[in-house]
Amino acid sequence: MKTLNVAIIGQRFMGRVHSHAWRNVQTFFDLDVSPVMKVACGRDEASLNGFARRWGWQETETDWRVLIARKDIDIVDIAVPNDLHHDIAVEAARAGKHIFCEKPLALNADQARSMLAAVEGSGVVNYVNFCYRRCPAVALAKQMIEEDRIGRIFHWRGAYLNSRLVDAQVPLGWTMLRERAGSGPQGALNSHSIDLARYLVADIASVMAMEARFIPERPVPQAGSGQSRGAVTVEDSAFMVVEFAGGALGSFDTSRFATGRKNYNYFEIYGSKGSLLFDFERMNELEFFSREAPAHIQGFSTILATERMHPYLSAWWPPGHPLGYEHSFFHAVADFLGAVDGKSAIAPSFRDGLRVMEIIDAALESARTGRKVAVPS
Amino acid sequence: MKTLNVAIIGQRFMGRVHSHAWRNVQTFFDLDVSPVMKVACGRDEASLNGFARRWGWQETETDWRVLIARKDIDIVDIAVPNDLHHDIAVEAARAGKHIFCEKPLALNADQARSMLAAVEGSGVVNYVNFCYRRCPAVALAKQMIEEDRIGRIFHWRGAYLNSRLVDAQVPLGWTMLRERAGSGPQGALNSHSIDLARYLVADIASVMAMEARFIPERPVPQAGSGQSRGAVTVEDSAFMVVEFAGGALGSFDTSRFATGRKNYNYFEIYGSKGSLLFDFERMNELEFFSREAPAHIQGFSTILATERMHPYLSAWWPPGHPLGYEHSFFHAVADFLGAVDGKSAIAPSFRDGLRVMEIIDAALESARTGRKVAVPS
Amino acid sequence: MKTLNVAIIGQRFMGRVHSHAWRNVQTFFDLDVSPVMKVACGRDEASLNGFARRWGWQETETDWRVLIARKDIDIVDIAVPNDLHHDIAVEAARAGKHIFCEKPLALNADQARSMLAAVEGSGVVNYVNFCYRRCPAVALAKQMIEEDRIGRIFHWRGAYLNSRLVDAQVPLGWTMLRERAGSGPQGALNSHSIDLARYLVADIASVMAMEARFIPERPVPQAGSGQSRGAVTVEDSAFMVVEFAGGALGSFDTSRFATGRKNYNYFEIYGSKGSLLFDFERMNELEFFSREAPAHIQGFSTILATERMHPYLSAWWPPGHPLGYEHSFFHAVADFLGAVDGKSAIAPSFRDGLRVMEIIDAALESARTGRKVAVPS
Amino acid sequence: MKTLNVAIIGQRFMGRVHSHAWRNVQTFFDLDVSPVMKVACGRDEASLNGFARRWGWQETETDWRVLIARKDIDIVDIAVPNDLHHDIAVEAARAGKHIFCEKPLALNADQARSMLAAVEGSGVVNYVNFCYRRCPAVALAKQMIEEDRIGRIFHWRGAYLNSRLVDAQVPLGWTMLRERAGSGPQGALNSHSIDLARYLVADIASVMAMEARFIPERPVPQAGSGQSRGAVTVEDSAFMVVEFAGGALGSFDTSRFATGRKNYNYFEIYGSKGSLLFDFERMNELEFFSREAPAHIQGFSTILATERMHPYLSAWWPPGHPLGYEHSFFHAVADFLGAVDGKSAIAPSFRDGLRVMEIIDAALESARTGRKVAVPS
Repeated sequence: MKTLNVAIIGQRFMGRVHSHAWRNVQTFFDLDVSPVMKVACGRDEASLNGFARRWGWQETETDWRVLIARKDIDIVDIAVPNDLHHDIAVEAARAGKHIFCEKPLALNADQARSMLAAVEGSGVVNYVNFCYRRCPAVALAKQMIEEDRIGRIFHWRGAYLNSRLVDAQVPLGWTMLRERAGSGPQGALNSHSIDLARYLVADIASVMAMEARFIPERPVPQAGSGQSRGAVTVEDSAFMVVEFAGGALGSFDTSRFATGRKNYNYFEIYGSKGSLLFDFERMNELEFFSREAPAHIQGFSTILATERMHPYLSAWWPPGHPLGYEHSFFHAVADFLGAVDGKSAIAPSFRDGLRVMEIIDAALESARTGRKVAVPS
Repeated sequence: MKTLNVAIIGQRFMGRVHSHAWRNVQTFFDLDVSPVMKVACGRDEASLNGFARRWGWQETETDWRVLIARKDIDIVDIAVPNDLHHDIAVEAARAGKHIFCEKPLALNADQARSMLAAVEGSGVVNYVNFCYRRCPAVALAKQMIEEDRIGRIFHWRGAYLNSRLVDAQVPLGWTMLRERAGSGPQGALNSHSIDLARYLVADIASVMAMEARFIPERPVPQAGSGQSRGAVTVEDSAFMVVEFAGGALGSFDTSRFATGRKNYNYFEIYGSKGSLLFDFERMNELEFFSREAPAHIQGFSTILATERMHPYLSAWWPPGHPLGYEHSFFHAVADFLGAVDGKSAIAPSFRDGLRVMEIIDAALESARTGRKVAVPS
Repeated sequence: MKTLNVAIIGQRFMGRVHSHAWRNVQTFFDLDVSPVMKVACGRDEASLNGFARRWGWQETETDWRVLIARKDIDIVDIAVPNDLHHDIAVEAARAGKHIFCEKPLALNADQARSMLAAVEGSGVVNYVNFCYRRCPAVALAKQMIEEDRIGRIFHWRGAYLNSRLVDAQVPLGWTMLRERAGSGPQGALNSHSIDLARYLVADIASVMAMEARFIPERPVPQAGSGQSRGAVTVEDSAFMVVEFAGGALGSFDTSRFATGRKNYNYFEIYGSKGSLLFDFERMNELEFFSREAPAHIQGFSTILATERMHPYLSAWWPPGHPLGYEHSFFHAVADFLGAVDGKSAIAPSFRDGLRVMEIIDAALESARTGRKVAVPS
Repeated sequence: MKTLNVAIIGQRFMGRVHSHAWRNVQTFFDLDVSPVMKVACGRDEASLNGFARRWGWQETETDWRVLIARKDIDIVDIAVPNDLHHDIAVEAARAGKHIFCEKPLALNADQARSMLAAVEGSGVVNYVNFCYRRCPAVALAKQMIEEDRIGRIFHWRGAYLNSRLVDAQVPLGWTMLRERAGSGPQGALNSHSIDLARYLVADIASVMAMEARFIPERPVPQAGSGQSRGAVTVEDSAFMVVEFAGGALGSFDTSRFATGRKNYNYFEIYGSKGSLLFDFERMNELEFFSREAPAHIQGFSTILATERMHPYLSAWWPPGHPLGYEHSFFHAVADFLGAVDGKSAIAPSFRDGLRVMEIIDAALESARTGRKVAVPS
């Protein structure tokens, strides 16, 4: 079987989930190409060796430029903080590597545009990992919309909420700094919701947004004695309303100050024929209301998307045996390898990733100016 | 026992619920004053007689001005469409009647301001019936906020959704005409959410809103042959984001195009110590998350607000025996009678009702101009 | 309109709910006969007067035999503890009164048989108030079974649980004494479940049951100094499995020691075409799974039984406005009056009430003997 | 690091899940021993090779006796149908292999007793894979019981329901034959519930059970033309009530005819201080009611058991990122390897597995005789 050499850059949370998928995708999915876990790349050499050994990466490399210069790498998996995406992706594209990139695509739309130019210039397969599209219940939602079970869509109501920053003692991290993250929950969380809304509803035409910053300074861990404090330079939360292309009206609320929410990626879609509700904390379920059932027995149904006929499920377990968070990464890796093998295109691409950045940029501008901002088309 | 003569104006849905409460409030609540169901007033004389007989109103009257001129009426209950509230309330206030008025208070803030001036000028008890405040689970939410179980509030996320207009064959009615209703779901539904947010969180400082109109014309039932079509002149839905006084960030989504939702009056409140969730379709329940429980057993609790120690419940049934929609009207009438008897003030007053109109006016302006609008203080 | 004079015996919890229904049934339901609240009967004269005044009973009487001897009473409503049902009902039947009797029908099957003989001998309308049949969501379940949406029924799983006796300080009351109550939760709670199972599934052929008594003695409130303790002489809980006529297999769990449950009257019905779930603590909802939907969108639907086309709902409010506990009593009274008026039969009758007692007697015997007991047919 | 050679027998559903765990346990858990995937054993040689290649088993073997005779195997993983457990386990024990055995332990208590004698005779580590104990939410339930948050336990209400046999066209398989499976859902499903009840509540003292068989014959797939039909020789469903050691009263309902249920492994535990509810179809959640919270805010809490401080979770993802079915197998393998390494005992052992068989045998006898059966102690 044809093999493809993969290099991963990043060894934290995303490095772990991606590695698990690369390592095991073939035990569940029948592929025509076989990924080889060639090189793990990270700056912290001490931990990198343990990481590579644990997950089965054959070699290590601490300089991503050296890594990309290697002729034997087919795929670069970018699993590092947002501020590094642009340079790595542009370089990798120039070197002809196929790119599997964590989200959000970049710090802003300008960077994303440059990245898109690079990948389209070189013709490499490019994918931005908005992983929730491949959660089976979400893929089922897409299928049901395509089956016209929802009809004309009137509304999207999205929320992506967690409570990571409610505690004022949580130290300042890179996700709270504009120069490293681009934005706060807009990029970290809401970018997922925007991608899902574009996937399931339509593109977004204009936005009005407000933001809040509740705890403007946080402790900075320091070597030596004592601790200093540093400024949070991104929003703590952002709520926005949008007009979709085609006229649907939508909302997106995102926050790191939603006490009780852990990883609450939630949406509601209301259409002329039916409605859909999804809550990632109950990721195996999709709620569906149909106006086409007899009137007296209509209701929201909880579809447990764990049957063989559900998207991706034939690779897994019998009905009623839940999947978990990591499984959508398996699905992404399987589909990505199919795309590299020329079997089918993969989405969301860098073009989609750019679009999400344009929408976030518009939202940031709206919050700054107090005006409705049309997303450039 | 001192009696108070009540006159009701309106004999449709609200006329029925109010009548049920006036008729039975004393069987459940121990009051020091006794309401007498004196006069039912409505323009359709044929149905009015049946209405009065059925509910026990002693007399009928088809002209509200005649009604208000009567010396023997102590309380006027305004249960008619929005466009009639202003004139009736102003007249009733001048005549020294205490006023129990359905929501929203008026067609707009200007009308509401004039009504407030009238009631404050004459010193009558004035109440606008945002009934959900007196749903026991909501009153419990208020109590828990006052007990400081929620802490500093970061977010309000409200939704008031139904699906009444999804079917394009639903005929044009007064609630879809700006001159009769003032606005669409903003006044009919979202006014409730705004009132609850002001009650539970804080006043609203500024808004950004968007609207949609999905089905701009609807059938008009006509005498004689055939049907014509008429324009819907209010919004079909409105989504908005707001800044609260004190800095909380909030959202309100309201729509008559939310397939599957029947009377979905829903909110989430996120604070530094805890969170609250409420869904009127499960009106006996309040969900509560507390950061003060041991970390490993924290979770959203479903409080079934049906125990004697819960607000208003000592008047009703044993634990686990649900109340229904109508019960909050009993609570409102009981509290209103207490206020007329001088026992305690009652809220929401016309001043609160005006404030809700000012916020809705600001939202309508924001949707029109595409700008953030500060609510005048 | 023809009037019917009603007398109620009992002024506690059931006396209150029944009175509310007699007082208001006509404001919601169009009837051809009109109930007159003639006499309230109870032993505690002091409280009886207040009770009668509050609810609108015209007269009072402290001796039920005197009451029944009156010629002007058409209907006797028995709302007293179980040990009084038999004598009152037999006497009332002999006097030709129509009988609306609280559940369970009697202390045991022998009493119930004697009561049945009396009412059938005299031909009076006889009804035992298993009120949950007339909860709209339950009536909808019945309708759906009749529409053959469930198919052949394989299983009933019922539970009726509360937590009233978890606290060892709860004093001994009549519901814990065999001579006054006949049994514990079997009669108080499980009789409801048995009635629903017979209504929705089939009659019960045989039972195997176990019981527990967790706190065998409780404080007895006493006049004078100090407190004594008395023995609980009924079961604290009873779990049983049953064979239905026709072969379905079922279970019933009932307990007053289910911490967290308030009035948890719950059932599941599994059939060859579909399934139904009901939880009275969410009484406006019925969950339905259909095997007849396309396989990939099957799921349990939550039907909010609040639409005009749902049973009894055309009398009430618009969609999404929940009913409460008391409303099933309105429905029972309306249907009972229709039966007295000769419009239609009413069930459950005393014959049904007897059958429930026979099943409970069989369960008590099974728990005593450790053997399967066939319910005599 | 010390290595341990593992051989697996079985290559179907259980073979796949176990292989996934052996293959990846070390990427998530820090162990002092390292499993080597040495041999995969199965009778179907054609599929066996693909199975071994896919999952990374180094060698294959079609005769389990030959396999066990090998000196280089440390651990035997038994993942075959029930009728093979006994002979393999006894042989493996004699050969000094540590045994990881799928549930139920055997066809009946006699076999289980012989297996227990063999493993205790040879002193090998023995484990029966009632995997749900290691679902984090269940392990959290155990922890909370040990923290005395539940108090004296009054009730267990368990159900293990699926709908695999509702369709009469489902062909006859080994799980429906007494000689191959021992029993029907009693062994396949309810054995899990019994194990959990023994783990969380107490041992079981006596049982009363009823069974049903709804579709007694099923199609038998045959080579050549046509199809024959064969008899189902196990129960289709079994409902039972039990007395626990210590006096709690419990119920267990198990069925393959519960339309809508997929893998519904559900329990409720009611105690004097609190209650717990668990539904495997929402496996990341545990519901908890505490009587120790202030009375007016008590309610069932949904604990999302995905935080680092929850059992096993520090090995996985951040809060709110659900685990799936397979993860409890990782936990079992990690704990089993620790036991083989002498770090700690592992449960459930064969002794526990025997006890479950004794309880099932008692239930089968009760259903046959119509009598309460004491489980021999």
